[in-house]
Amino acid sequence: MLYQPAMKTIDLRSDTVTRPTAAMREAMARAEVGDDVYGEDPTVNRLQERVAGLLGKEAALFVPSGTMANQLCLGVLTRPGDEIVCDHGAHCISFETGALSALWGVQARTVVAERGLLEPAQVEAAIRPEGDPYPRTRVLELENTHNRGGGAVYPLDRIRALAAVAERRGLAVHLDGARLWNACAASGLRPADYAASATTVSVCLSKGLGAPVGSVISSTKALIADARRLRKRLGGGMRQVGILAAAGLYALDHHVERLGEDHANARRLAEGLGALRGASLPLPVETNLVFVAFEGRSAADLSRRLAAEGVLANPEGSRPDMLRFVTHLDVSRADVDEALRIAARVLA
Amino acid sequence: MLYQPAMKTIDLRSDTVTRPTAAMREAMARAEVGDDVYGEDPTVNRLQERVAGLLGKEAALFVPSGTMANQLCLGVLTRPGDEIVCDHGAHCISFETGALSALWGVQARTVVAERGLLEPAQVEAAIRPEGDPYPRTRVLELENTHNRGGGAVYPLDRIRALAAVAERRGLAVHLDGARLWNACAASGLRPADYAASATTVSVCLSKGLGAPVGSVISSTKALIADARRLRKRLGGGMRQVGILAAAGLYALDHHVERLGEDHANARRLAEGLGALRGASLPLPVETNLVFVAFEGRSAADLSRRLAAEGVLANPEGSRPDMLRFVTHLDVSRADVDEALRIAARVLA
Amino acid sequence: MLYQPAMKTIDLRSDTVTRPTAAMREAMARAEVGDDVYGEDPTVNRLQERVAGLLGKEAALFVPSGTMANQLCLGVLTRPGDEIVCDHGAHCISFETGALSALWGVQARTVVAERGLLEPAQVEAAIRPEGDPYPRTRVLELENTHNRGGGAVYPLDRIRALAAVAERRGLAVHLDGARLWNACAASGLRPADYAASATTVSVCLSKGLGAPVGSVISSTKALIADARRLRKRLGGGMRQVGILAAAGLYALDHHVERLGEDHANARRLAEGLGALRGASLPLPVETNLVFVAFEGRSAADLSRRLAAEGVLANPEGSRPDMLRFVTHLDVSRADVDEALRIAARVLA
Amino acid sequence: MLYQPAMKTIDLRSDTVTRPTAAMREAMARAEVGDDVYGEDPTVNRLQERVAGLLGKEAALFVPSGTMANQLCLGVLTRPGDEIVCDHGAHCISFETGALSALWGVQARTVVAERGLLEPAQVEAAIRPEGDPYPRTRVLELENTHNRGGGAVYPLDRIRALAAVAERRGLAVHLDGARLWNACAASGLRPADYAASATTVSVCLSKGLGAPVGSVISSTKALIADARRLRKRLGGGMRQVGILAAAGLYALDHHVERLGEDHANARRLAEGLGALRGASLPLPVETNLVFVAFEGRSAADLSRRLAAEGVLANPEGSRPDMLRFVTHLDVSRADVDEALRIAARVLA
Repeated sequence: MLYQPAMKTIDLRSDTVTRPTAAMREAMARAEVGDDVYGEDPTVNRLQERVAGLLGKEAALFVPSGTMANQLCLGVLTRPGDEIVCDHGAHCISFETGALSALWGVQARTVVAERGLLEPAQVEAAIRPEGDPYPRTRVLELENTHNRGGGAVYPLDRIRALAAVAERRGLAVHLDGARLWNACAASGLRPADYAASATTVSVCLSKGLGAPVGSVISSTKALIADARRLRKRLGGGMRQVGILAAAGLYALDHHVERLGEDHANARRLAEGLGALRGASLPLPVETNLVFVAFEGRSAADLSRRLAAEGVLANPEGSRPDMLRFVTHLDVSRADVDEALRIAARVLA
Repeated sequence: MLYQPAMKTIDLRSDTVTRPTAAMREAMARAEVGDDVYGEDPTVNRLQERVAGLLGKEAALFVPSGTMANQLCLGVLTRPGDEIVCDHGAHCISFETGALSALWGVQARTVVAERGLLEPAQVEAAIRPEGDPYPRTRVLELENTHNRGGGAVYPLDRIRALAAVAERRGLAVHLDGARLWNACAASGLRPADYAASATTVSVCLSKGLGAPVGSVISSTKALIADARRLRKRLGGGMRQVGILAAAGLYALDHHVERLGEDHANARRLAEGLGALRGASLPLPVETNLVFVAFEGRSAADLSRRLAAEGVLANPEGSRPDMLRFVTHLDVSRADVDEALRIAARVLA
Repeated sequence: MLYQPAMKTIDLRSDTVTRPTAAMREAMARAEVGDDVYGEDPTVNRLQERVAGLLGKEAALFVPSGTMANQLCLGVLTRPGDEIVCDHGAHCISFETGALSALWGVQARTVVAERGLLEPAQVEAAIRPEGDPYPRTRVLELENTHNRGGGAVYPLDRIRALAAVAERRGLAVHLDGARLWNACAASGLRPADYAASATTVSVCLSKGLGAPVGSVISSTKALIADARRLRKRLGGGMRQVGILAAAGLYALDHHVERLGEDHANARRLAEGLGALRGASLPLPVETNLVFVAFEGRSAADLSRRLAAEGVLANPEGSRPDMLRFVTHLDVSRADVDEALRIAARVLA
Repeated sequence: MLYQPAMKTIDLRSDTVTRPTAAMREAMARAEVGDDVYGEDPTVNRLQERVAGLLGKEAALFVPSGTMANQLCLGVLTRPGDEIVCDHGAHCISFETGALSALWGVQARTVVAERGLLEPAQVEAAIRPEGDPYPRTRVLELENTHNRGGGAVYPLDRIRALAAVAERRGLAVHLDGARLWNACAASGLRPADYAASATTVSVCLSKGLGAPVGSVISSTKALIADARRLRKRLGGGMRQVGILAAAGLYALDHHVERLGEDHANARRLAEGLGALRGASLPLPVETNLVFVAFEGRSAADLSRRLAAEGVLANPEGSRPDMLRFVTHLDVSRADVDEALRIAARVLA
């Protein structure tokens, strides 16, 4: 599990691995703080207001992780025995340790959506009838960009059509926007454009934006008050956490504009890897995620061999011969080129 | 909701609607009873031994419903955060009020299986990798016959192949055998033949067998002791319930052999309904369930119009133009013919 | 655990052990039935209306056990993270397999009440302040008669004072009336007199009333609809269960008036047992429960020795030297005298 | 709720309100970090090893709060339907938003212990008998120092006697050591002396020790691996969190020795406050918590009036006329004297 770096490594496992820059560390060291459990940390409050503003919502809440962000939103929108509709590869049911059912007693009714992007008709068909035997369908969950879908960006009109179905059928909409910043960088839209269709939104500060820790959720004042209470129950209430919020504010100021570089690097990486013998790109590369299939080879084995040469990438996705490469703040264009050279050697 | 019979009705909504016969009532009235919470009801004990024997298992437990039967089995095989693999239309996630997640905190990873009958490769692909972010895959759930699959019967070699995958990958197998008696009537196999591949089995006494109330689960002594404890927690521990167990014993003696009649009636009904204009049979009829699609019509509307003429059938299945007709102990061949006459008139 | 009767036994373990009389069996055998999951069992419907009427409530629901009765009421009144206030020996937290927390995620804040009968000031002090860190106090739970309190009867003005606190502080009131019939027999009040102070009430048909199986809960139409849904989730939805409801109706017609005999037998038993050397009665005997302490002796050992002579009584209550004796429909005055003779011999 | 400082305030609400010192901020800014979800943050790993060493355990885990610390320990030691034994004022059931039942489905059986310090006989009496109706008693929970008990320190021989009962009866022991450092400062014992009796231990870095965020739990390798998985589920897995761990390491190096000053300040404060007219000290002051009762006055009102003069203290404890004052790193002896002058004026 634990990787011990012995040489210069190019870490393409995830955009979560970025380390804070010197300037970001400086911002953290200078942060004004207070006890956030009492609501008295000014830096946390500033970050929350900032994100609520960006998403066009009334209120926001800082939380320690993307998992807590999604689960708090799903928790405030449901009761035990309810059901959510989502893609079968959604993060909230695939990578959050079974939290949806274990914490909230909620089932997922999954849809096999192309590139993880649901169609309105799929949602209609997935809503249960009324009656005692049936789970109650309560939430439509969307992920933008969609990790398992290859970093796919939701077209805005699709999101609006999905939200229209949800509204007509009485469902809330949760938008897992862990990589919403990447969606915006790709589409040129603002976060609030996507968030307008959602009841609750989660965004991550420690993926593409490069902050060390933290996500933010945003919604109405009432739902955020409920989420704050659930955050306490999950143990996510922290004290002088303005230290971390300061990194988030710094990232919003300095690391949003540059996401286009990650996307360009991802395309460059995809072109190079896709040209290798036996390799293919089953999913288009729209943002910073690159899924590459190596026909007939073991992804776990390839991962180990690349790691031995200093290139880190995880087996990931729907096939056992697939690796995921992720570009981010700590991967330069030169790193991409070096990674391609190493990959060509290893895979030869 | 509540149907008030005003004329002779032919009730094809479900095989759960059967009323106890005079002889079965007599058996109930004479039943020797004791306090089953103390394990002292001799009739209950006899029924449990009988079913355990039929299924080739060490022990069995009488429970008030098919829902409790399935959920107790799934409850003893899992912990919160675990995951089961099952067909997307499985009874245990579709018609049990969200119990799997609400009671046990367990997720379902669903597979879209043809006629509800899973393929080994689908199960392999659905098992999660190990690691903190992933739910733990613990149980393979099979339903035989499969309701949503049209009363489909699992081929025995398919069940064995699925069980082999489960064993190799460390999964328990739960067999939802609410209509296992029908599977046996169709295949000529014994209940134990199917049950041999399962860790836990549930069978129903109040569907095809015609008892008024009750299901039985069966497994090892240790798991049945665990289930007995969970049954108490769910409120399923009853006192002098030998009254009901006596009906189950009577049904095992007198209502198993006759299930072939229900299947013949179902085929007759299917032929007649399938020949009506605009009607089709999307699923083969192997047992006592008949799903009929009426292209372009509203199943809810048809259901109301048939009911007005004394034929009851529920909208059911994956399409909004589909009705399900179920044959059972209280439906004779003459009833089938009468129902066909009425349906022809109503649908004309 | 399992007691195998080899001689005539006098079973004083619980009032749950009664066997249906010949006339009750006759009523069951003749019961008109339907599928109660569809709400179509006329005998069940009649029983539910009857009990709702007796309790002065809008609606009622038949359930398979006292545990399910209490837990459904507590389930519809709470959400995970809520708290109820109750006596530390309340049935719903002591004898229901941890259901309160396991099924609903609800904590109990317990009060050490004299004879299990809470005081208004105790309830006031147990209600949590508002704020994120605190569980939300939502329900006041009362048990009448109170089992661990020695079958203690709540004075009506105490119940009213408690309900006034609950109303002022925004708590619902659940009345566990498993032995409410005994409270009425002792006080001369009607069930509705006690029930008027409660949001939800559970009463048992298979304890003092002698029916083989079943309890009934009662409340508003809306809460009973919620409970009906939760009953389905717990697996308590049964089919032609009018068979059992008929026994309940028979018991209401024929077994309520006679409860005074059980109380007289209990007093007679208490006097006789209390006069034995080393024995004492720590709790007054108001109804059909008799707790006897045998200073310095092991209740488990005494229980075994009495059983060997045909007298059954369980160790029970707050002390390891205490036995509980329960009178009921199947215990005559002659049985009491015989039990006293045997007890005198065994304890000598 | 939200306190807006307008003047120099002396904040005695809790030892959680401390702000990081300049030197601690410097340590954070320089911290070497990695992705702790992959186990690759060297500073986190160093902190975990350090705390495991101090507590004499195999392994440790950094978590974002004291609530998560306690709940993870209780979560790995239980299954739904289990019961823990603890004092009725224990933090884990009073101030953690109902997490014990809501997250794990576990009941608390509470004991009214003097100053929160349990007696072995109380524990013995609270353990349930075996059998289906009973919750399973699995954990003995101890809090040292005990907040509601006035910061009471457990005598070591009492802890050992309690642990002996637990071992004999098959219970695990969880030690809530949020203020274990204070217990050590008062008793002169080492953390490992107390921890030796416990299966799992939680300690807090952001109370007396003055770090901005974080707690650490410690136990066997196997249980910590389980807790790590549950931490992911609760959303407590953070990325480059060495930033915060660095503050914890700094606090262990520099803020443990000085806790005696807080205790001296607390005694000084207690003497002064206790001498005011109408004031009394219902609980001895052993560590840094001072509970003062103001006979017949409203604690909420006093709290507001003191706040208006710049002295912050919360209503807290078992009486509505009681305030809690807490000394810590940001409260000097001069602050104590100033607070006493203000209190004398306000209370006059």
